[in-house]
Amino acid sequence: MQKKKRNVIVGQSGGPTAAINSSLAGVYRTAIDRGYTKVYGMIHGVQGLMEGRYVDLSEHIQTGLDAELLKRTPAAYLGSCRFKLPEIFEDKAVYEKIFEILDKLAIDCFIYIGGNDSMDTIKKLSDYAIISGSTVRFVGCPKTIDNDLALTDHTPGYGSAAKYIGTSVKEIIRDGWSLETEKGQVIIVEIMGRNAGWLTGAAALSKGEDCDGPDAIYLPELPFDLEKFIKKIKGILAKKPNVVVAVSEGVKTKDGKYVSDLDDSPDYVDAFGHKQLTGAARYLASYVSREIGCKTRAIELSTLQRAASHCTSRVDILEAYEVGGAAMKAADEGDTGKMVVIQRLSDDPYQAGTEVKDVHKIANDERLVPREWITKDGTFVTDEFITYVRPLIQGDVAPIMVDGIPRHLYRPGFQDKL
Amino acid sequence: MQKKKRNVIVGQSGGPTAAINSSLAGVYRTAIDRGYTKVYGMIHGVQGLMEGRYVDLSEHIQTGLDAELLKRTPAAYLGSCRFKLPEIFEDKAVYEKIFEILDKLAIDCFIYIGGNDSMDTIKKLSDYAIISGSTVRFVGCPKTIDNDLALTDHTPGYGSAAKYIGTSVKEIIRDGWSLETEKGQVIIVEIMGRNAGWLTGAAALSKGEDCDGPDAIYLPELPFDLEKFIKKIKGILAKKPNVVVAVSEGVKTKDGKYVSDLDDSPDYVDAFGHKQLTGAARYLASYVSREIGCKTRAIELSTLQRAASHCTSRVDILEAYEVGGAAMKAADEGDTGKMVVIQRLSDDPYQAGTEVKDVHKIANDERLVPREWITKDGTFVTDEFITYVRPLIQGDVAPIMVDGIPRHLYRPGFQDKL
Repeated sequence: MQKKKRNVIVGQSGGPTAAINSSLAGVYRTAIDRGYTKVYGMIHGVQGLMEGRYVDLSEHIQTGLDAELLKRTPAAYLGSCRFKLPEIFEDKAVYEKIFEILDKLAIDCFIYIGGNDSMDTIKKLSDYAIISGSTVRFVGCPKTIDNDLALTDHTPGYGSAAKYIGTSVKEIIRDGWSLETEKGQVIIVEIMGRNAGWLTGAAALSKGEDCDGPDAIYLPELPFDLEKFIKKIKGILAKKPNVVVAVSEGVKTKDGKYVSDLDDSPDYVDAFGHKQLTGAARYLASYVSREIGCKTRAIELSTLQRAASHCTSRVDILEAYEVGGAAMKAADEGDTGKMVVIQRLSDDPYQAGTEVKDVHKIANDERLVPREWITKDGTFVTDEFITYVRPLIQGDVAPIMVDGIPRHLYRPGFQDKL
Repeated sequence: MQKKKRNVIVGQSGGPTAAINSSLAGVYRTAIDRGYTKVYGMIHGVQGLMEGRYVDLSEHIQTGLDAELLKRTPAAYLGSCRFKLPEIFEDKAVYEKIFEILDKLAIDCFIYIGGNDSMDTIKKLSDYAIISGSTVRFVGCPKTIDNDLALTDHTPGYGSAAKYIGTSVKEIIRDGWSLETEKGQVIIVEIMGRNAGWLTGAAALSKGEDCDGPDAIYLPELPFDLEKFIKKIKGILAKKPNVVVAVSEGVKTKDGKYVSDLDDSPDYVDAFGHKQLTGAARYLASYVSREIGCKTRAIELSTLQRAASHCTSRVDILEAYEVGGAAMKAADEGDTGKMVVIQRLSDDPYQAGTEVKDVHKIANDERLVPREWITKDGTFVTDEFITYVRPLIQGDVAPIMVDGIPRHLYRPGFQDKL
């Protein structure tokens, strides 16, 4: 007789995305379909779990409509955390505590939706399970707008962020052209991605039959040269009065200093002496203004780019759902210490499937934009980059509108003090 | 026998919006329907017109699909300007030049889509026509995200901006709650509106059954008190770990100084000694960080809020179209020196119609949020405010997507140097 299935626990970790809750919906659906008794959700990931904070997800996802709302709810429904487990030999007590809770909740499968740090958690917990003889299976479900996870073609969350960035940059370009200014105008758009330029490169998606796209794109993969930058801007301004440049928040000079740190204004130091990041775009806009004397504007897409569930990609939201389901399926079928990856079968027509890979080969590894997908002069992405991203932004998931505003799935007490 | 109808010219002026091109489409359609021969578009408003820059709109709007794309294209399709005509007695030559061009183009009707300054243009040109015996009719079509025009219930462009602001603030709130921070987090969202708080108040639209909305809203209509602000933030932080505040870019202290000017960092002075505006949100985030020591984040909705044609209100886009048509109809029927206004007949069900009012009573007058629509303590808007705005954000205009990105109507050469 088949062993009776017990319970599942799922958590979310790392930076929020517009697709991470679709993965949560996928995990939940597959867990229920495969006969698990209860699906628990960790509140604020392993950090919350260690404090005994979790919910029974069946109380949250009661109807099919709830599941649809969840797919359209931005940021981590369960709350997220940035918490790195110690090495097992450093602090065994932490692991004993977590496994005690898993034991108490009769957990068979532990699914963690997250990025690099989260996969490190899956790696360590699955290692500990082997050492300690626990039968709990640990499977990771990829998520990050940064698209920097190894071994997977791309990560859920990236496509929607890329779509929002392409759409917004196109609107910014159009807006910039409305008004003429005597000496021209330079708009610098700052896009997320500390080390990987996947998001910043997505600004090129604005280019098409009806728009020239941004005039330059600077990714963090290559050293940023202020002199060359100003020369480039001057050259463009000689040909057109409105210039739009996309820069990664993480651009660094060749000596490794963040451009956003070049500003030594004393005003942005907090009570602890921490310098508040001024922003690469603000610094560059100020620099251009001083060097060229034209009108400038710095625009940060800020958290809007990762939370814009009103402008998501259908491919992305559906893949996030599938990947959640695939993670649950893998754990159900006995996998542990694994992460689900997406494998692209074809660009056009776009086809992709999921596979399961060893999390030890993924955790703490960062996948950057290949050098050959950046133009030789380092100021734009190539057609190969566009061919890669384009399929990931296709289709829409219409928000469910209530009284003119997108409805999200409410989590009782989510705005209360804990 | 009826006099043969000759030509129409239409221009766009002032800050761009997501609905201004829908009005342009409305003017064009009605002009053609009413039998005008040609519809010219001024490139960059009267400023461009004086330089002889205009296009034949029939070369741009060739099909019904073009008109639909135009309605979905953000910012001023024809290009805009910020140009204030001199008083007639100051410089008659400017007027003679404009009327010479209108004469050359055989113009019967001159339609100008814009805000306060643009209505000043309609006023002066219609006055000059009377003085000089010209038969050209001048009618204004209201447009501004700021919603600050007198005598009209609201202005096209406002509803879409309000919808984008409500939607984005809701997503920012959700994103902010994903991660827990030890000392809490304060997010300050900066919203456009130098003197009028209509846009900033729209942040309250994020409030609903699934979201508490922002914790405080500061409009520019009331003096901003830094001490009371910090006290308020501390009070909220004592009850909840994540605080989201919406502030107008135009908030001023009681001695009339912009909060954004309180920052005296020397780094933001351009080549001409002009101080770059630092931003109210950035200043306040930095201030909160110093005073309270918690994590802060400043988010500026920047030009995204006026250019987000991917997230417009159907009521707004259709009204913009109607108002364009009504302006053309009024001019065709002999009105001059007038502006079309929207008159609300009912809140629920929402009903509104257009009327024509004397532009002399509108130009250069600013309509602010009434004091009674702001709460007594000055930190939120009342239910009356919401009741007023809510109908204006209803319904969507689905973007026409091509390859995953909204398509706009292309204007040949719009990105070239003139």
